[in-house]
This record gives sequence, structure tokens and C-alpha cells, in this order.
Amino acid sequence: MEQIGNRDRLIKSWLYEAAAILRDSFHEELEIDEKTSRTDLVTNMDREIEVFLYEKITNHFPGERILGEESIGHDLKDLSGVVWIIDPIDGTLNFIKQQAEFAIMIGVYEDGIGRLGYIYDVVRDELYFAIRDNGAFCNERRLPMVENKPLSEGLVAISNRLVMADAGEARRIARKSSGLRVNGSAGLETAWVASGKLIAYIAPSLAPWDVAAGLVIAEEVGLVYRQVTGEKVNLLGNNAIIVANEHAFREISETMRMGE
Amino acid sequence: MEQIGNRDRLIKSWLYEAAAILRDSFHEELEIDEKTSRTDLVTNMDREIEVFLYEKITNHFPGERILGEESIGHDLKDLSGVVWIIDPIDGTLNFIKQQAEFAIMIGVYEDGIGRLGYIYDVVRDELYFAIRDNGAFCNERRLPMVENKPLSEGLVAISNRLVMADAGEARRIARKSSGLRVNGSAGLETAWVASGKLIAYIAPSLAPWDVAAGLVIAEEVGLVYRQVTGEKVNLLGNNAIIVANEHAFREISETMRMGE
Repeated sequence: MEQIGNRDRLIKSWLYEAAAILRDSFHEELEIDEKTSRTDLVTNMDREIEVFLYEKITNHFPGERILGEESIGHDLKDLSGVVWIIDPIDGTLNFIKQQAEFAIMIGVYEDGIGRLGYIYDVVRDELYFAIRDNGAFCNERRLPMVENKPLSEGLVAISNRLVMADAGEARRIARKSSGLRVNGSAGLETAWVASGKLIAYIAPSLAPWDVAAGLVIAEEVGLVYRQVTGEKVNLLGNNAIIVANEHAFREISETMRMGE
Repeated sequence: MEQIGNRDRLIKSWLYEAAAILRDSFHEELEIDEKTSRTDLVTNMDREIEVFLYEKITNHFPGERILGEESIGHDLKDLSGVVWIIDPIDGTLNFIKQQAEFAIMIGVYEDGIGRLGYIYDVVRDELYFAIRDNGAFCNERRLPMVENKPLSEGLVAISNRLVMADAGEARRIARKSSGLRVNGSAGLETAWVASGKLIAYIAPSLAPWDVAAGLVIAEEVGLVYRQVTGEKVNLLGNNAIIVANEHAFREISETMRMGE
């Protein structure tokens, strides 16, 4: 991939522009539709931001493929060449109910390898990003490598879905930590593990657009971001994942295997 | 209680001063001690802010009594006269681990009736407050009365402790809502119910300092803030509480009573 600095500057400018569109939308009535259930929602703004990013990418990088949460590229069968994986609003329920705690996410992959990752916390104005082999940042601040601390020393975020589906599993892990948090945004929770605010994030079913940006950032700070089984995440399917430092990752996957 | 506007201005100035002290502390090493368990922690900053507020109150309002989380007034036996109930840092675990998602809280009661309530989200710079019979605010913005919506239309925050202690109960309630959140600050979660970001907050064991400020704010926006049993909260003991609009309160207490 050439001109990575140029891509980085462009992507940031698009994110700031998209964020301004979202902030303006706070004053307008949202159109809300159900996707698979009454709590799996999409708004006109998810669609608008996806189209906005789609147009920017195809204008500047014609020929590169795009996979977006709301509709674009869902027939993608492989990751050859450059593939952009975007989530226009990660944490749509938070966006609708709280007008906060959501993120715009972009990951850029080349032949399946993550090159660039962006998680933009619009309301806090915190842009977490990473360029492969060049470190991860929150705005201008470089994120240090994560410490290899035990689960007991940190707060663990577990997805709403896992807490609801199998509270035993979630409880066993949470009990070994300093405490449970459920924030409702895979992107922000991953960014907070990368910046040391959480020790781990666990979710039973993440789609490629939930994973793509965070994976690049996680790797740059030395986190393990894998499926619960230990396998690499699959960017063409759903994943039960753990994001944590190596020590905590091992504790969590053992706790999951062992049962009560 | 006389000169309520004067008290309000003083309290706000103390909160902003205390917040500046806390923000400065982000750059220094914290001293952390365990209270009742490895996840029930107190820092030198909890103690410093409690003493700071204690001194302000006793200087300006000598003779008025004070109940503070860390040590002050724990022999309080009644609520006669003016009683200040303060939590120097609500969400101490968040303060330690995230340097975010915590609040400074002050409630002022007269003969057991809440007159003034303040929940200051230091990092977001959002001061939620209420003066009895004069409405509730977030900074300069007046909070509208809450809508009487069903549980299914909002996100419900449940305390870490309840999710851990009885996931069945927590899950039954969360399943009827739009989704579960666990944020780790009774004050912020109450403020977010008052401002409509959450539909309810449920916690099995809140101390007077967890309750005092939020109760005043909740009442000014028409929320029900009561014990799970329906009884009034007890400002001299621990409380299992629900904060919600009337409709959602009824749904939650029925769900708790009925079982799976």
C-alpha cells in the first residue's frame, strides 16, 4: 500500500466531517428501523454515514473494495487486495438513546493484513487510531504498550449479549476482575482496552465491521485480539472474541473452558 | 433554609474547585487502600476531597451536620436540621482505572427533605443539579420532565453488584429493556436516567451518599426513586433501589417479584 500517510490524513478528514454530520443530526428526528430484532436497530444516519464514506473511498481509491455494516459489500468472499471495512455508527443503540457512547470505525486491510485502524469517539472527540508498525494513538498521544497484568487488576467489559445469554460465564470472568462494565460499543470498549482503561473486552458475536479497526489498534499496543478458541479472527464471518493482554487472555479463556 | 441561591452558588464553586484538584491528581501516583474487599477501594483523593468539602461547609455553615462516605458523620442517628450528605468520588474504581466515569456528589437535606442535589461528572464537565421545586439542570440546560415510557423503550443500567449476585433477576429486567448497561457510578447512572439517556437504574445496596444528590434531581424531573419494595429510601441505611419513570418502575418491580 503506497502513500500511507496520505491515506491517514484523508481518513481523518473524512471522520471529522462525518462526525460533524452526526452531531448536527442530534437536533433532528431520527428515522429508526429494526434489522433482526427490536434491539437491533439502524437509523437514517447509519446509512447516510456509510454512503458518505463509500463515496469518499471510491472517489479517492477507485477499484478498492469496501465492506460496510449497513449494506455495502456483503457478498465479499475473500480479502485479496485492499479492502476497507467500515462501521458508520458502532453502538447504534447508544447513538439513538444517549446521543453518546458510539464511534465511527474504519479498518483498511491489504491481502487480509490490517494496515490502518480508526475508532472515533465522536462525543468525547477522541480518535483512537493505528498505522501498522507505527504505533497506536489517541488523538496526538501515543498509547504505550499494554502491561501484562492479571485479570484481577482491571475492569472487564462484556457485551450485553454475552451477559444476557450466559450470565454464569460472564459472572465467573467478572468475579475474577475488578468489576464488570457493559458499555454497548465494541469499538469504544476495544479502544479502552488498548488505552488501559479496561483490562479486557469479551463478546460472543462480532461481525467484521465490529472487529476490523480495533484489531489493528490492539496489535500495535501488544494486545491479544483473538477468537475465544485462540484462533485468529475471521474477517469474513462472526467471531466470539477476547481482547486482552496475554496474561488476562489466558485467564479468561481458561475460565471459559473450565466452567463454574 | 435561607438564601438557597447563595448556597447553590457556593456549592457549585466548591465542586469546580474540587474537580480541578481531581484533574491535577491524574498526573500523580494514587495511594489506594482496600476498604471491605479488593474491589471496594479508597484513594488519598477520596479523603482529600471529603476533607476539602467538610472544611468549606463547616466554615460557611457552622453547626450544620455532615455525612460523608469516607469517614465523616458515620454516627449520624437522625436527619433533623440541615444535613449535608457527600460522596467525594462516586465511582472510585472508575476513577482509579479509567480516570473517567466518576462524579462528585452533594445533597443538602433539611429535616429529611432534599433541598439541593449535585452530581458533577468531572471529566465530561457536566454538572447535573436540582433545587427543590425549581427544576433540574445539566449545566445551563433545564432537564424536561421524564416521559412515562415502557421499559422496552430504553437502556437499563444495573449495578455490577446485582448483575454479579443474581444474574437471573438482572437478565429478566434487561431482556424487557432495549439493553443492559453497567457503568459503575450510581451518581452518573442516576443523572442519565434523569436526562433520559437511560430508562432506569437498579442497584441492590446504595448507601446514603450514593442516594442523596440523585434523589433530589430525580424528584424534580418526575422520576420515581424508591426502594424495590416501594418504600421511601432510607437516608440512614442501605437501600435496594429502582430509579425510573412510574411506568417502568412498576414493570421492573413486578418483574423482580414474579421470577423467571
